[in-house]
Amino acid sequence: MPAVEIIAIGNELLLGDVLDTNTHWLCRQFSGRGGRVQRVAIVPDEPGAIAEALEAARRRRPDLIVLTGGLGPTSDDKTLFSVAQALGRPLELNERALAMVQATYERLAAHGLVRDAALTEERRKMACLPRGAEPLHNPVGAAPGVLLREGETAVVCLPGVPAELKGIFATSLQPLLSELFGGRVFLERVLVTDCGDESLLAPVVNRVAADHPQVYVKSRAQAYSEGVRLRITLSLSGEDVQAVQAAIEAADRDLTASLAAVGIVVLERVEGG
Amino acid sequence: MPAVEIIAIGNELLLGDVLDTNTHWLCRQFSGRGGRVQRVAIVPDEPGAIAEALEAARRRRPDLIVLTGGLGPTSDDKTLFSVAQALGRPLELNERALAMVQATYERLAAHGLVRDAALTEERRKMACLPRGAEPLHNPVGAAPGVLLREGETAVVCLPGVPAELKGIFATSLQPLLSELFGGRVFLERVLVTDCGDESLLAPVVNRVAADHPQVYVKSRAQAYSEGVRLRITLSLSGEDVQAVQAAIEAADRDLTASLAAVGIVVLERVEGG
Repeated sequence: MPAVEIIAIGNELLLGDVLDTNTHWLCRQFSGRGGRVQRVAIVPDEPGAIAEALEAARRRRPDLIVLTGGLGPTSDDKTLFSVAQALGRPLELNERALAMVQATYERLAAHGLVRDAALTEERRKMACLPRGAEPLHNPVGAAPGVLLREGETAVVCLPGVPAELKGIFATSLQPLLSELFGGRVFLERVLVTDCGDESLLAPVVNRVAADHPQVYVKSRAQAYSEGVRLRITLSLSGEDVQAVQAAIEAADRDLTASLAAVGIVVLERVEGG
Repeated sequence: MPAVEIIAIGNELLLGDVLDTNTHWLCRQFSGRGGRVQRVAIVPDEPGAIAEALEAARRRRPDLIVLTGGLGPTSDDKTLFSVAQALGRPLELNERALAMVQATYERLAAHGLVRDAALTEERRKMACLPRGAEPLHNPVGAAPGVLLREGETAVVCLPGVPAELKGIFATSLQPLLSELFGGRVFLERVLVTDCGDESLLAPVVNRVAADHPQVYVKSRAQAYSEGVRLRITLSLSGEDVQAVQAAIEAADRDLTASLAAVGIVVLERVEGG
């Protein structure tokens, strides 16, 4: 199962000014492709903090590290500078990235959204990438995404603006995603019970989890208009769709029967969470 | 400025099943009290991962480390076990915590919300704390919060259910918050401009930030019905309210005049973000 780490960068996240929805969205995307996000770090716009988080992530040898935020034109956007420093690569003007930035400002100027398309120092900054980087076309904003290869790990930098992050993810990042995640599937099924007391449900869930070690079994309370109800999530990823389905079915049958034995009814099943 | 680290624990966060709103809420609370959240980690319900994150946070010597999630009765809730292991303390039944758990289940049973108030193994688990821990009364749910002192660092474990986390924060955690944050204030002012082009605004913002190094200056794009507008946040915390106010005022005056010089108008000021 490909392992992923996410590093979200931005003082505004740590100040509580902005809720980081990018990480949640990315986690769903990677889980849905059969990947496993093993760690997330949220760090300030400080080269030391960014480099430390990148180093810590690399030591765990994931297949992919995604950094979000800090790619903009202002000097408080320090991601590429920090990544270059941490990886010991010089930061240099990338001609392909510059062409992308220029095309964006020409388009924006043609629509009257910026005053002119001149490549000022601030705009050129977005095209200064660590040596060896591949720029990723940004269909929404000006700052290109960045792809680097460090040994077996792909390092990807995406903008913090959600629409730009999603735009790159859905277009220029697809070849890397296919390379890393190939044909893996992820299945998830949620069982909604009539029980609101986790301590009653716990022994059953624990026994089923132990007997189906390949399936991830997790219970969680959720408020409904009728009161709190416990939901149990069964999930598994793998390369063989039929084997994954069969394992989920087996855990579901066992769980449902064991819950019934202590008087708990499964009210509803939801596929895909 | 008191330094804080947050460790959010839960496979459901990394799977993208649940959006972690606790961290954002906590960041706002600590910023609002004049603290600084210097790092956030999101880790799975695995003792090794939790211990590693706790060790990494402790090396940066914050005043406070808050761990959220994983305090429930099921065996997949591993936070206290992991914290005890990481800090080299035995996990033992805490009589005060047990009394809290018992009182909660008696209340729930009296209201017919659980079948009985028996202290099963799962319910007793929530009262097994690392040695030397102080339980924090949970006014909303069953699992008490936990306060530990490790040298100069306070380590606090809070439930992952947002209402329970907020309930403990607003009640039994207040003495620690007063001890750590005392009378510090945090002021924030947002200037909404008529400009949508960050590369035009950037040189002005950079110059003002350099001339007012004590004030945190950050620009960010926000979508409005009239199109994208750049917002500039000025913020500062300190012990002297008047000095903090004066520094924000000075930065605002300088910024407004410098923006006007390049034709950018400040449309609106919002205090407190």
